[in-house]
Amino acid sequence: MAAAEPKPPTGAAAARRLARSCWSAFWDYETPKVIVVKNRRLGIVYRAVQLLILLYFVWYVFIVQKSYQDSETGPESSVITKVKGITLSEHKVWDVEEYVKPPEGGSVFSIITRIEVTPFQTLGTCAESMRVSNATCDSDEDCVAGQLDMLGNGLRTGRCVPYYHGSSKTCEVSAWCPVEDGASVSQFLGTMAPNFTILIKNSIHYPKFQFSKGNIENRKGGYLKHCTFHEVSDLYCPIFKLGYIVEQAEENFTELAHTGGVIGVIINWDCDLDLSASECNPKYSFRRLDPKHIPASSGYNFRFAKYYKINGSITRTLIKAYGIRIDVIVHGQAGKFSLIPTIINLATALTSIGVGSFLCDWILLTFMNKNKVYSHKKFDKMVDAPERGAGPGICASESSQQDCVLTDARGLAQL
Amino acid sequence: MAAAEPKPPTGAAAARRLARSCWSAFWDYETPKVIVVKNRRLGIVYRAVQLLILLYFVWYVFIVQKSYQDSETGPESSVITKVKGITLSEHKVWDVEEYVKPPEGGSVFSIITRIEVTPFQTLGTCAESMRVSNATCDSDEDCVAGQLDMLGNGLRTGRCVPYYHGSSKTCEVSAWCPVEDGASVSQFLGTMAPNFTILIKNSIHYPKFQFSKGNIENRKGGYLKHCTFHEVSDLYCPIFKLGYIVEQAEENFTELAHTGGVIGVIINWDCDLDLSASECNPKYSFRRLDPKHIPASSGYNFRFAKYYKINGSITRTLIKAYGIRIDVIVHGQAGKFSLIPTIINLATALTSIGVGSFLCDWILLTFMNKNKVYSHKKFDKMVDAPERGAGPGICASESSQQDCVLTDARGLAQL
Amino acid sequence: MAAAEPKPPTGAAAARRLARSCWSAFWDYETPKVIVVKNRRLGIVYRAVQLLILLYFVWYVFIVQKSYQDSETGPESSVITKVKGITLSEHKVWDVEEYVKPPEGGSVFSIITRIEVTPFQTLGTCAESMRVSNATCDSDEDCVAGQLDMLGNGLRTGRCVPYYHGSSKTCEVSAWCPVEDGASVSQFLGTMAPNFTILIKNSIHYPKFQFSKGNIENRKGGYLKHCTFHEVSDLYCPIFKLGYIVEQAEENFTELAHTGGVIGVIINWDCDLDLSASECNPKYSFRRLDPKHIPASSGYNFRFAKYYKINGSITRTLIKAYGIRIDVIVHGQAGKFSLIPTIINLATALTSIGVGSFLCDWILLTFMNKNKVYSHKKFDKMVDAPERGAGPGICASESSQQDCVLTDARGLAQL
Repeated sequence: MAAAEPKPPTGAAAARRLARSCWSAFWDYETPKVIVVKNRRLGIVYRAVQLLILLYFVWYVFIVQKSYQDSETGPESSVITKVKGITLSEHKVWDVEEYVKPPEGGSVFSIITRIEVTPFQTLGTCAESMRVSNATCDSDEDCVAGQLDMLGNGLRTGRCVPYYHGSSKTCEVSAWCPVEDGASVSQFLGTMAPNFTILIKNSIHYPKFQFSKGNIENRKGGYLKHCTFHEVSDLYCPIFKLGYIVEQAEENFTELAHTGGVIGVIINWDCDLDLSASECNPKYSFRRLDPKHIPASSGYNFRFAKYYKINGSITRTLIKAYGIRIDVIVHGQAGKFSLIPTIINLATALTSIGVGSFLCDWILLTFMNKNKVYSHKKFDKMVDAPERGAGPGICASESSQQDCVLTDARGLAQL
Repeated sequence: MAAAEPKPPTGAAAARRLARSCWSAFWDYETPKVIVVKNRRLGIVYRAVQLLILLYFVWYVFIVQKSYQDSETGPESSVITKVKGITLSEHKVWDVEEYVKPPEGGSVFSIITRIEVTPFQTLGTCAESMRVSNATCDSDEDCVAGQLDMLGNGLRTGRCVPYYHGSSKTCEVSAWCPVEDGASVSQFLGTMAPNFTILIKNSIHYPKFQFSKGNIENRKGGYLKHCTFHEVSDLYCPIFKLGYIVEQAEENFTELAHTGGVIGVIINWDCDLDLSASECNPKYSFRRLDPKHIPASSGYNFRFAKYYKINGSITRTLIKAYGIRIDVIVHGQAGKFSLIPTIINLATALTSIGVGSFLCDWILLTFMNKNKVYSHKKFDKMVDAPERGAGPGICASESSQQDCVLTDARGLAQL
Repeated sequence: MAAAEPKPPTGAAAARRLARSCWSAFWDYETPKVIVVKNRRLGIVYRAVQLLILLYFVWYVFIVQKSYQDSETGPESSVITKVKGITLSEHKVWDVEEYVKPPEGGSVFSIITRIEVTPFQTLGTCAESMRVSNATCDSDEDCVAGQLDMLGNGLRTGRCVPYYHGSSKTCEVSAWCPVEDGASVSQFLGTMAPNFTILIKNSIHYPKFQFSKGNIENRKGGYLKHCTFHEVSDLYCPIFKLGYIVEQAEENFTELAHTGGVIGVIINWDCDLDLSASECNPKYSFRRLDPKHIPASSGYNFRFAKYYKINGSITRTLIKAYGIRIDVIVHGQAGKFSLIPTIINLATALTSIGVGSFLCDWILLTFMNKNKVYSHKKFDKMVDAPERGAGPGICASESSQQDCVLTDARGLAQL
C-alpha cells in the first residue's frame, strides 16, 4: 500500500483528500455487527420478555391510559340554573324569588331553608347581645363608653341596661336595634324543599379540539317540562329534585336544612373525541363540600336585610338565612389522537423492548457458557455469501443448516 | 495457557482475583463493532430517512408544537367589569344600577333588556295562573284545599274563583297576589342596549413562571375614556359595545334582547414566554353559550323583587327579567423553555432517527446481497492501523482508498 | 455445499424450507458484537459522563421535578367566606349586612370602605352633571331635546337650567333626580375595617387521586373562635384580619380604602400524595389584582340602590360604593407515583446515558489510535472459551490476563 508514493502530500492536498473522504464517509451506512445465538431456550426467554413489555404497552399505556392522545383539561363552561317550587312556613307561602339567593341563576346559589328574622330594626340604642364577651354588666361602670367590640353589634354608650328578656343586664350599644340575639324569630321553610326542582343547563367547549356539547337534549312532546333526571334513562334531562341531590350526597335533609351546608353538583365531561360525539356524556356526582365534621365552622348561613322607610326613618328586617348552597362544578378531560404523544410512547416502548436484550445478555454471560452456543455473524455471513454461492443472502434461505448453525465453537471461531 | 500453574488457587484468592478483574472490567469501555457498508445508494436512503425524521422533529415537534417548553394552563385570573349607558322604556329612563345584576362588577353579570313587572303583590288569596296544570275549575269541588303544586304559585284554598280576565275560573291560592301570569306588564328596555359600553379589566398571573399581565394599557391623553376595542388598533382598550359583542357572537340583537341569552367573552392568553412580554397578548372571542337550538330551555331570565312597606303591610314588585348574561371566561397556556421536555423530545428524536437504520438493515438483507457490498470493520481498522502506518487512524485520512473500500467480498472476509 | 443435492427443490419445498428456517430464526437471539477497549483513561471518561447524566436525572428529573409522578392540576374547590366586624362612619354604625356585598359568602365579595350616597332620588327632571360632555349650556338652544348621552344620566328635555351649586347652567335631563354628581355625600367607613376578620373555609378534592382536604382544623376549647391565621403556628386557622391581607399584598390600607381595589387571596395546594396527607398543606399568598398603575382604570367601585315607596311614589337611595374586593383563588397540583411517566423518564435516562458512548467513540477515533489500545471481543471470547478450558466464561475469571488484555494491536487483529 502507498509504496509508490513519491513524496508526502502537501497540506492543501491532504485537506482536500480529507474532505473528499469525509464526504464519501458521510454516505456510508453503518450497522452494528451482531452475533446470532441459536439457542432455543435463550430465544424463548428473549421473545417472552419482549412480549411482556409489548403487552404492557399495548394494554396499559395505549388502551387503559390512552397515551396516544393529546389531551385538554378544564373545558370552557357555562352554567345556567333555575329553581322551581313553592314552600310554606307557619304563616306564609314562599316562592323562588324569596328563597333563592342570588336570583341570577349562576353556578353558585343558595336555597334558603331556615331563617331567623329580626324585624323592625332601626338605628338607635339598645342592650348588647349576651353572647358578646364582656357584655353583661351590673352597673354603668362595667361598660366603657366608645368601646367597639369587633364581634359585637355596635358602639358602647357606657350605660348598663336591662336585657330583652330575663332579669340580667348588658351594656347598651348604639346599633341597629333591637340586636339579633334579642329579638329574632325562627322560621323553617324547608318542609317542601326536597321537592324543589333545579334545572342545570351546562354547555362546555374544548377549544383545542373545537368541540362543544351541552347537557340538555330536545325531545318532542314537551319532554323537558315533565322529565326528571335519571342516570340511565334520562341522562339528558338535567332537572334534579333537591331531595335527590341531598340524598346522593349522602346527607340527612332535615339536618342539612337546619344547619345549612354546601353541596357540590360535579359534572364531569371525560371525552374520548376519537369516538363519536354521542359517546361524550356528562357524569354527575354529588358531594358535601363544607367540613361538616368540624362543629365550630359547620353549616352555612348568611345575613341579608330588606330596608323600608316609614315616616322618613329607615327600618330594616334583618334575615339570617340558613340554606343549602349548590355549587355546580364542571370539569373534564378530552383526548384525541395526536402524533406526538404516540411517537414518544412508541419510542419509549421500543426502547423498553431493548431492555429484554439486557436481560438476555446477562443470561448469556452467566449461564450459557457451559453449554454449546451456536452462533454466526449475520452480517458477515451476508457479505461472505457471494464467496460460497449465489443464494439470496439471508442465512436460512441460502445455505444448508450446517452453514448457518455451527455445531461447535471452533467453527464459530473460524468466522 | 496456564500450563505452568503449579496448584489451583484457593477460594479466597479466586474471589480476590475475580473482584480485581471485575473492578478492572468496570473501567473498560465497550463499543459495538460496526460494519461500514460503502454503498452510495444505501447511504442516500439512510440519510434521506434520517433527514425526514429530523425535519419532522425540528418542524412539527419543536417549531409547531413547541415541545421543548414546559407549560402551564389555567392562569390565576381576576376580572373587573363595569357597564355604562342609559336606556329608555316607554315611560322611564333606566340607568346602570337598574339594569345590571348583580351590581358588583364580577366576571358574570346580566344586562336586563326586557322585564315583566307584577306590581303591588301582597300576601293574600287570588286566582291561580291558568298555565298551572289542573288550575282551571268549574266549581269549588274541582279544587282541593291544602294542595300545593310545585310549579304553581301557592297553597290552594279549596275555592274556585273568576280569573283575572276573561270568563274562565281557576282555583284560588294563598300566595303573593295577584299572580304573575294574571297581572304582569311587559317593558322593553333594550332599545339603547347595543350602545352600552362594557369595560372588562382582566389581569392574569402564571405562578409557575412568575409572569403577570393585564389587558389594559395606559396611554396619554385620557385614551381609555374615549377608545373602543379594536382587534388590531386598540387591542389594549378593553371597552366593548354590547352590540359589538352580540354581533361577534353572530346573534341577532333584537331576538336575543327579547328571549335573553348567555354570551361568553372568552379571553385567551396563549403566551410563549421565551419571547418578550409584549408578544403575550390577549385574544378575544365571543360565543353564545346557552343552547339556543332547544326551544324548551332556550333564553335566559330570572326573577327578583323590590319590597316596600306601605301602612305596615308588605308589598312587593316582582320583576321577571330577560337579559343578556355576559360570562367572561379567561383561559390560556404559557410555555417556557425547560430542560426536561427538551431532553425527552430530543431522546425521542434520536431514538426515532435510529428507525432509519431498521429500514436500511432490511434493505441490506433483502436487496443488497446480489450486488457487491463494500465494507470494512471500522473499529478493527482503527486498531489495525498502527500495524500498517502512522496515520491518524480514521480510515479515509490514513490509507489509500483500496485499503478502505474493499473491492470484493474476499478482502472483506480477511478482516 | 449442497453438492450432493440430486435435483433443485420444487417451489413448495423451498417455501416450506424457508418458513421452517424463518420460524427457527425467530427464536434466535441476536446481540451486538462489542469491542472492549481496555484503556483506563477512556474508561474513566466514559463512566464519568455516565455518572453525570445519571446524577442529572436522579437529582433534577426525579427529585426536583418529581417526573415519576402522574399529576393533576386544578382541584375541585369550594369556598365559603364569612366576614365579621362593625365599623363607624361619622353618623352611624355599620354592620356586616351593610358593608359586605354580595352577602352570600362566596369566593368573591366586596367589603365597602367608602360610599357616595345620593339620597331621595326620584324619577323627574333636573340638571345634568357638569362632567358629562356638552352638558353645560347658556340657553335652551344649546340643549337638544330627545338627546341621550350614553355616559350621561338621562334624556335631555331641551331646557337649560341652573346647576345644583354655583352659577353655571347645564341641560335638563329626565332621569333619577337629583343626579349623583350634584347631590352625593361621601362617607368613609373604613376606619375599623383593618380589624374585620374574614373566615375562608376552603375544601379541595383531586378527583384523579380521590384525595380531599380542607383548610380548617378542629382543635378543642373553641380554638376557632379565638385564633388568627399565622403561617407557622396557626396554618389551619383560616381567619384573616383584613388589615393583614392588605399588608401582605403590600398595599397601603388607607389609600386602598379610598379608591377601592381587588386583592387576591391565593390558596395553593401543591401536594405530593406519595407522602402522608398531613404533608399536603395550603399555602396562602396575597396579591393586588387590579392594575393600580393605570390611573384611568384604577380602583374598584360599583353602584347599588335601595328603593323605598313613599306616598305611592318610588324613591331610591343610590350608593356608589368603593371597596376592597377579595377574590379567593384556589389552585394547586397534586402528584402521585405512576408507572407511565416513570417508564418514559427512565427510558429517556437510559437513552441519554448512551450519549456517553457517542462521546467516547469520538475520543476513541480521534485521539486513541496513536496509543496502544487493548481490547478483545467479549462475546467471541465467551464462545471461544470451551476451546481453551472449562472456566466460567467471563474473561476475567477464566483466563490469565494476557488472554484478555492483549498487549499489542497485532494480537487484537488475530481475534
